[in-house]
Amino acid sequence: MTKRIAITTGGGDAPGLNAVIRAVTLAATKRGWECIGIRSGFDGILHPEDFEGDGTIELTPDTVRGIAHTGGTILGTTNRGNPFNYEVENEDGSTTVEDISARVIEGFKRHKVDVLVAIGGDGTMGIAGQVADMGIPVVGVPKTIDNDLNGTIATFGFDTAVSYATDALGRLHSTAQSHQRVMVMEVMGRHAGWIALHCGIAGSADVILLPEIPFDIDKVAAKVAERNSKNRKFSIVVVAEGAKPIGGTAKYHQTGDVFRLGGIGELVAEELRLRVPNEVRTVELGHLLRGGSPTSRDRLLSFRFGAAAVRAIEENHLNVMVGLDPPTVHYVPLDECTKSIKLVPLDCDSIQTARDLGTCLGD
Amino acid sequence: MTKRIAITTGGGDAPGLNAVIRAVTLAATKRGWECIGIRSGFDGILHPEDFEGDGTIELTPDTVRGIAHTGGTILGTTNRGNPFNYEVENEDGSTTVEDISARVIEGFKRHKVDVLVAIGGDGTMGIAGQVADMGIPVVGVPKTIDNDLNGTIATFGFDTAVSYATDALGRLHSTAQSHQRVMVMEVMGRHAGWIALHCGIAGSADVILLPEIPFDIDKVAAKVAERNSKNRKFSIVVVAEGAKPIGGTAKYHQTGDVFRLGGIGELVAEELRLRVPNEVRTVELGHLLRGGSPTSRDRLLSFRFGAAAVRAIEENHLNVMVGLDPPTVHYVPLDECTKSIKLVPLDCDSIQTARDLGTCLGD
Amino acid sequence: MTKRIAITTGGGDAPGLNAVIRAVTLAATKRGWECIGIRSGFDGILHPEDFEGDGTIELTPDTVRGIAHTGGTILGTTNRGNPFNYEVENEDGSTTVEDISARVIEGFKRHKVDVLVAIGGDGTMGIAGQVADMGIPVVGVPKTIDNDLNGTIATFGFDTAVSYATDALGRLHSTAQSHQRVMVMEVMGRHAGWIALHCGIAGSADVILLPEIPFDIDKVAAKVAERNSKNRKFSIVVVAEGAKPIGGTAKYHQTGDVFRLGGIGELVAEELRLRVPNEVRTVELGHLLRGGSPTSRDRLLSFRFGAAAVRAIEENHLNVMVGLDPPTVHYVPLDECTKSIKLVPLDCDSIQTARDLGTCLGD
Amino acid sequence: MTKRIAITTGGGDAPGLNAVIRAVTLAATKRGWECIGIRSGFDGILHPEDFEGDGTIELTPDTVRGIAHTGGTILGTTNRGNPFNYEVENEDGSTTVEDISARVIEGFKRHKVDVLVAIGGDGTMGIAGQVADMGIPVVGVPKTIDNDLNGTIATFGFDTAVSYATDALGRLHSTAQSHQRVMVMEVMGRHAGWIALHCGIAGSADVILLPEIPFDIDKVAAKVAERNSKNRKFSIVVVAEGAKPIGGTAKYHQTGDVFRLGGIGELVAEELRLRVPNEVRTVELGHLLRGGSPTSRDRLLSFRFGAAAVRAIEENHLNVMVGLDPPTVHYVPLDECTKSIKLVPLDCDSIQTARDLGTCLGD
Repeated sequence: MTKRIAITTGGGDAPGLNAVIRAVTLAATKRGWECIGIRSGFDGILHPEDFEGDGTIELTPDTVRGIAHTGGTILGTTNRGNPFNYEVENEDGSTTVEDISARVIEGFKRHKVDVLVAIGGDGTMGIAGQVADMGIPVVGVPKTIDNDLNGTIATFGFDTAVSYATDALGRLHSTAQSHQRVMVMEVMGRHAGWIALHCGIAGSADVILLPEIPFDIDKVAAKVAERNSKNRKFSIVVVAEGAKPIGGTAKYHQTGDVFRLGGIGELVAEELRLRVPNEVRTVELGHLLRGGSPTSRDRLLSFRFGAAAVRAIEENHLNVMVGLDPPTVHYVPLDECTKSIKLVPLDCDSIQTARDLGTCLGD
Repeated sequence: MTKRIAITTGGGDAPGLNAVIRAVTLAATKRGWECIGIRSGFDGILHPEDFEGDGTIELTPDTVRGIAHTGGTILGTTNRGNPFNYEVENEDGSTTVEDISARVIEGFKRHKVDVLVAIGGDGTMGIAGQVADMGIPVVGVPKTIDNDLNGTIATFGFDTAVSYATDALGRLHSTAQSHQRVMVMEVMGRHAGWIALHCGIAGSADVILLPEIPFDIDKVAAKVAERNSKNRKFSIVVVAEGAKPIGGTAKYHQTGDVFRLGGIGELVAEELRLRVPNEVRTVELGHLLRGGSPTSRDRLLSFRFGAAAVRAIEENHLNVMVGLDPPTVHYVPLDECTKSIKLVPLDCDSIQTARDLGTCLGD
Repeated sequence: MTKRIAITTGGGDAPGLNAVIRAVTLAATKRGWECIGIRSGFDGILHPEDFEGDGTIELTPDTVRGIAHTGGTILGTTNRGNPFNYEVENEDGSTTVEDISARVIEGFKRHKVDVLVAIGGDGTMGIAGQVADMGIPVVGVPKTIDNDLNGTIATFGFDTAVSYATDALGRLHSTAQSHQRVMVMEVMGRHAGWIALHCGIAGSADVILLPEIPFDIDKVAAKVAERNSKNRKFSIVVVAEGAKPIGGTAKYHQTGDVFRLGGIGELVAEELRLRVPNEVRTVELGHLLRGGSPTSRDRLLSFRFGAAAVRAIEENHLNVMVGLDPPTVHYVPLDECTKSIKLVPLDCDSIQTARDLGTCLGD
Repeated sequence: MTKRIAITTGGGDAPGLNAVIRAVTLAATKRGWECIGIRSGFDGILHPEDFEGDGTIELTPDTVRGIAHTGGTILGTTNRGNPFNYEVENEDGSTTVEDISARVIEGFKRHKVDVLVAIGGDGTMGIAGQVADMGIPVVGVPKTIDNDLNGTIATFGFDTAVSYATDALGRLHSTAQSHQRVMVMEVMGRHAGWIALHCGIAGSADVILLPEIPFDIDKVAAKVAERNSKNRKFSIVVVAEGAKPIGGTAKYHQTGDVFRLGGIGELVAEELRLRVPNEVRTVELGHLLRGGSPTSRDRLLSFRFGAAAVRAIEENHLNVMVGLDPPTVHYVPLDECTKSIKLVPLDCDSIQTARDLGTCLGD
């Protein structure tokens, strides 16, 4: 029986989204099914008037040609769009939160959607579960740069981010060494330190600070001092966005100068300046980690996820998320993916590897 | 108790060897142990007179500094060196095969080696097993560009090769399309088609030919013709070195012109020229796949393998190979790794993905 | 007065063609002019029936969006299309050469073309001159991977090719050193050795062989031997496609084994095998040099050339080729560009640099 | 007659420094001369006690092996070291400026230096001129990421920086488009906008702000609004570090919120937020632009400069700076290089190209 699939991409973008869209479209077309893409999360059906056309894009082999190696998402995305908890702007400029999910379901019916393929992070998977509860079958595809989603060993976009951050560390090494500086590089990772840990090991950082291991700034300074004493008068520090000093950041925020500082990278730098003689500079990779062409590995993973989502639908395996359980792709109940965040286990072999290489983890 | 580790790298080189050497050295140093590297497989102890110094390199944090991102191996390698089956040149120029393993054992004793870390493919793992039988404890580290070694989901160097080949496919796409050509790209993979399959999917090849699936050249030509008919007058064909037509290559080798042709890529091209109107050109990536700086993923994997080898020694977990069983590194008895080659399973989800995307696999 | 510009891309493709097309289109649109692209050289107007539509593409800001960083040409290209010397297939399968330029002129009139922007190499510039003689004003934009066109210091695509070849040399270095091999890499350059010289210096090749300097194979072997003697038992040889041994290749072609060999790279390798103890391997970059995304420098150059072509038309500066005369773009009469090929001057500072670095140039 | 050359690298590091050092060393060795490198600008002879050894490095083919593709400088660098104007720390912690150039000259004599090769920017060239006046012959090699040095069309490191920044723009494009954001990217260029202009054109930025053209923030906002109205609801803005609004930054610095902002990129973003509905995000490339492996073009240029410096010495062509005057390397009197900064000419064809492409330059 022919089916009509809707695809949505939600949350921050990640390299590989377009490859997933292409794979779903081609695998569906092969089965004689139809595909549409909803623009900007759910906005395309909530606010079709905001878009040219009707808020959706007909997805065919022609419309998904040549997109697999591009970053971003041809559907657009938004951080606003939880229809169960939707931010509505009132006339007086204030905002209220409403449950407008009925309009989403109605939109799916208007577009004669049989199944929703929801590509996103834990927010999107949570919404997907609620949409499923309202009677629209859903298959989720995991997406997070941070790799902190349960139910899958890896998410697409993560390898691209680690690859970019590792290259950045290489660049900082040469300039740090020439100038005898400490370079502090901040990377994404609010809750989990996967990017920091992987790029830090691959790029031979001297210090890696993760949300999972509260750090002692004096230990960090001691590592820099130890290197100085061995005539390696430069050091590279990688800090995950969500890393925290033991006891929290409050005690470092009391002087006016430091208070104004934005990220944890700046704070670590400022504190190091008080403790080591080297010049200390910071770099924040920010949005550069999100963009760009996916690595070959992320393209492959995206294609596998997209094709597996269509096979799940064919096999009537619904209200699951596809995930990677090497060497194969498997299916996980949606709620298993969202009940917690996948943190870096403190005893995993990558952490042990970092310690074996002599890297300071701040503890 | 302090230990003295010898490291050897055997067989074709792969990006990541130096990162393994660095990880073993740093992890050993951290434990107060010593490390030496044997030059050119086992030649450094079999023929020390061929080298400056004594055929080994003292490995310290200083000697392994800055090598992790470099390709090749600082120890050198050789394809000659199975000491149980050693090719010896006689005075008359002929060669004889001898078992000179006793000299290897003697060499290890001369250098006071407690444990050997053998980095190599299935040949090296087989030798490692025999060395272990003779009383030198061994820990193996898997290395093969082709990813066809059992006991590990992935080998370092493989991601780098796939990444390079995928990039090459992108380059060929633009020129193939501009000139309406068929481009045939041959990649490594004598027994297993992992590189071809992964780069072929990631790089959106139209045809992927693997050793695991004997191909019908007429099916390949039909795919090209189908694309021509849809006004996509170019096609990209990826061929693994060990791909074979149904019935073998013999029947294609009867005309003088074709007989002289070297690789399977040339043969596929020649046969396609007889069947499709497009110009057909070939590219063979060859040694370019082996060289170069490892990807961030391969660096991380190499570091994890090297550190895990040292932990195995510390835990007295000997005569094993380290391997990747995501998300963790594990240890596998040496003989399990060598009793067969890890082929691409015909029903794995990557094969299904290729089919779902409409790729022709020649069958 | 509004104008209608036709763009054609002829000969082998080169990274940057699409950026030129985009620049011409945007600069023309800005002036209120119109642009069309002729498909596949002149075939779009000679054989419109071979194409969907009428053999041309309306070029607008929308149709040229997002193409600047892509390789190839959205117009397609062909090596067949000199309309003054056109290969026509007869009914019996034989081919005759005809002057069908009148049909080109007629085609331009049918499409109401005021000016032709011809992007191509010396073949295309020659045709452009003849088209100009027949009354269609022309502005040429130089395109050759080989950089051997007079009237411009640099052509787009050249930097991309050199960059790719230099990266390839880096990869070969690590594997050559690990295996103590001689690697011979053949690159494009039938008449001029610019690619070989630039990548050879940038990539620290030990030997660089150019069409401009006939080489003595014994000098090449001597360089390899000298390195072997200094315990650098590997060497990297770059050979331009058009390099020739002193006295020509004839004397090397007498043994059956060598006779069958294709390119000059294979011949150099075969002759070296007779003269040095190292294993010798070859790599031919071939079409990989043509494809791919242009470097930032080639993108900038392409944009500058495309915009300058439109300014030339606006200033009524016709029947010229745009060219780079650093720091500025200038205009050159078409016939000055085609009367000779731009060879590497034997006394230029790059040649001196290669010699100063100790590189063997085969003489 | 044999000569002894000293090399110094001063100021911020730039990709290509090591290739210059290698070229000077090899070209000198070829002539039977000797080379030493002074560590950290002039500190190696001013404060030899701060270093292991005597503050210099003997430079031989062995010590410069494998460094050409690495970023940074093996000699180290410093921003402190103008010996004619040297910052000395007093016992009470205050600093005084002294002329300690006599100690430099004395150092050169102690090391029996015949000629100094000074690699640096306009600061270093000024010092070089003064050193020459004191009797030590000098050849300068231009180095500045910013490309703002007179006497040369291009400096090494510049192409690498532009290449990196262009790649970053590509990454920002995909994420900006997916999220309908304005991305403001700040790049180096305090006095001259070469990096911003070149990467901005190559990377298809919508707005490019240079020090040479004071900008009107309302014009920038109008460009964003124009794109929004055409359903291109994202924009990319490149800002050179030294760009300034018409009338200076003072008027924007009056609110506390904005006052705290660091760079001009943040200021542009803040002002845009007041004027356009899009989310606005900033990225500052900072030190990432300095580091990393030089592009093939920068390696070639560095090699050419280094070799030319040695030829200048051989030809007794002293107290000059080598520079690029395509297609050749030439020599320029030192004082010609430092009397002014090379700004982007307002009527150059690159500026015209940007305007032809529809880019807003803020005016």
